[in-house]
Amino acid sequence: MKVDIIISADDIKQEKIEGRSVLVIDMLRATSVITTAMMNGCKAVIPVLTVERALEIAGGNREAYILGGERRALRIEGFDCSNSPLEYTPEVVRGKTLIMTTTNGTRAIDGCRKAENILIGCMLNALSAAKKLVDLGKDIVIVNAGTYGQFSMDDFICSGYIIECLKEITEVELSDIAWTSNQIYNSHPDIISFIRYARHYNVIKNLGLEEDLEYCIRKDITDMVPVFNGENIE
Amino acid sequence: MKVDIIISADDIKQEKIEGRSVLVIDMLRATSVITTAMMNGCKAVIPVLTVERALEIAGGNREAYILGGERRALRIEGFDCSNSPLEYTPEVVRGKTLIMTTTNGTRAIDGCRKAENILIGCMLNALSAAKKLVDLGKDIVIVNAGTYGQFSMDDFICSGYIIECLKEITEVELSDIAWTSNQIYNSHPDIISFIRYARHYNVIKNLGLEEDLEYCIRKDITDMVPVFNGENIE
Repeated sequence: MKVDIIISADDIKQEKIEGRSVLVIDMLRATSVITTAMMNGCKAVIPVLTVERALEIAGGNREAYILGGERRALRIEGFDCSNSPLEYTPEVVRGKTLIMTTTNGTRAIDGCRKAENILIGCMLNALSAAKKLVDLGKDIVIVNAGTYGQFSMDDFICSGYIIECLKEITEVELSDIAWTSNQIYNSHPDIISFIRYARHYNVIKNLGLEEDLEYCIRKDITDMVPVFNGENIE
Repeated sequence: MKVDIIISADDIKQEKIEGRSVLVIDMLRATSVITTAMMNGCKAVIPVLTVERALEIAGGNREAYILGGERRALRIEGFDCSNSPLEYTPEVVRGKTLIMTTTNGTRAIDGCRKAENILIGCMLNALSAAKKLVDLGKDIVIVNAGTYGQFSMDDFICSGYIIECLKEITEVELSDIAWTSNQIYNSHPDIISFIRYARHYNVIKNLGLEEDLEYCIRKDITDMVPVFNGENIE
């Protein structure tokens, strides 16, 4: 089973994902939000690219929907929740559909439509995501959302941890970049000692969102692995 | 001074290199060949994309030219030299113009034409390349040739060493990927302990080219930093 990595939403090439199982990662914070919401009883997540599209889907029916996401890491005006996974408690999300738009994560998910399978991953569900990827039996591409089209250290080390989980389950053939991310993880298993040098980490820290960071680096707190079927994430 | 990395010839985006100083790296082995040939008295190097174009430029005048390069890591039929830097001795190259075509390196050089400055780098001239980049005063993009459009561990750790040299000379602002390559270098300053896991390394090793590998990982044996002016490398 081959394992490769794409380093940002801007670097997704269709020929690299077609026929493969893709795991989309935006650990700070979109895929941590999606995983948390689904773990807490959210019915489905609809990822959309624009604020306008989110409002259009919700229409007048604001009872059934939650609007969530960010622009420049902050809550969008008129939305219910920001991009903080801590807001997506069972009380808030149970039985509702989350409509979500973020700068990097939802764009990466959207770019992977041609993949055979599209799973949503982060630190919170890493081991379960690895198991599901192995069960699916296809070659694997871990798609890092990155930050504004750039490589992001947080998604990269998270990929390295997921590869560590894959290695524990099965024999994998790693591309050079997959091998490198796993090497980075094995030199920094605490995660923070590496990502504290990441630009994106510092953006979030400067906004006073340390609690989000502490939450998003927790390993394997859930076996929920959301799947995108081209319309909804369920 | 900002420092970024592009991970393969296929990932060069014009907006990332315009107005910047670019250092093209294909340490195994194209940029090690170019650096060695220029160090040993070669007049100029003309990088070309195809074997046909190389033969066309040389024409009947085979006294003035050397034809060098590779396809699938092996010497091209009718060419004088392969992609082994050890063949480019003073006796072979002095006063001659090298016409060169390789799978990854010359393609990366060609893709960087819109950059403000285009320098050729490898382990052999890393410190001098760093000094020249700083002297040029522009933001820096290290372009890794990669291997067949993929990230290559050898070019990545070489970038990390060049960044280490830059850090010793001046204050640099590293992108996440630049920071990561430097981190990889600092965990593996002997280079080999990292690149022995690289696919490309093993291709070359399996061809019995260990001497090339030993040569290409030598640090700072020359202050020759070749420059591409859009036509020739001098």
